[in-house]
Amino acid sequence: MPTDHLSTIFAALADPTRRAILARLCTGEASVTELAEPFEMSLPAVSKHLKVLERAGLIARSRDAQWRPCQLHAGPLKNVADWVEHYRRFWTESFDRLDDYIQTLKDKENKSGKQRHNELERG
Amino acid sequence: MPTDHLSTIFAALADPTRRAILARLCTGEASVTELAEPFEMSLPAVSKHLKVLERAGLIARSRDAQWRPCQLHAGPLKNVADWVEHYRRFWTESFDRLDDYIQTLKDKENKSGKQRHNELERG
Repeated sequence: MPTDHLSTIFAALADPTRRAILARLCTGEASVTELAEPFEMSLPAVSKHLKVLERAGLIARSRDAQWRPCQLHAGPLKNVADWVEHYRRFWTESFDRLDDYIQTLKDKENKSGKQRHNELERG
Repeated sequence: MPTDHLSTIFAALADPTRRAILARLCTGEASVTELAEPFEMSLPAVSKHLKVLERAGLIARSRDAQWRPCQLHAGPLKNVADWVEHYRRFWTESFDRLDDYIQTLKDKENKSGKQRHNELERG
């Protein structure tokens, strides 16, 4: 089981429902009932997801109000952004390589197209 | 179990050893034995991690060479960067709020310091 904070954050994000909950909380705080609505999920199932998000520090639940609304705490996502930033040049390079490869294929295609055309011309 | 690609990527990143393997592969391709060395891990344990990274599309293993070196494929990390980017303004806001809060504490501290000073002066 991962115990470091970054692993806990990544594990919390490794679920489409939890990411959808975070997206919903971008529009403002919400109760568990409100969060459960779009997912056709039981309240205990949603509560389980919220606990995972809470443990990762991605949401907080008010202790005061009776309906205990959930709020987005986006701070830990900065750690994710900082981590992934180190790899930017590598994915840029790999997309460049893909572009080069596609260009090579196109050049090849054009060349063989011209060759065929010349052959037809020569008849 | 998550089945969408982004969840698979996040799950693959939710482990410090797997992130360390990716970091090592930034310096160039490596064999399983080379990757296992710094972790004091058995080869099967490392192979298991490599399979998770491979399934997420984050590494690829050459089929040709006998030692089957692993290579970083950073492309999927662009999905992570794109996803997290949507939240940037939220963590910026939350750090701004933290700054405001720290400033309030400082102002309070200064005020009460001055008050104490004045009291002592008058005292």
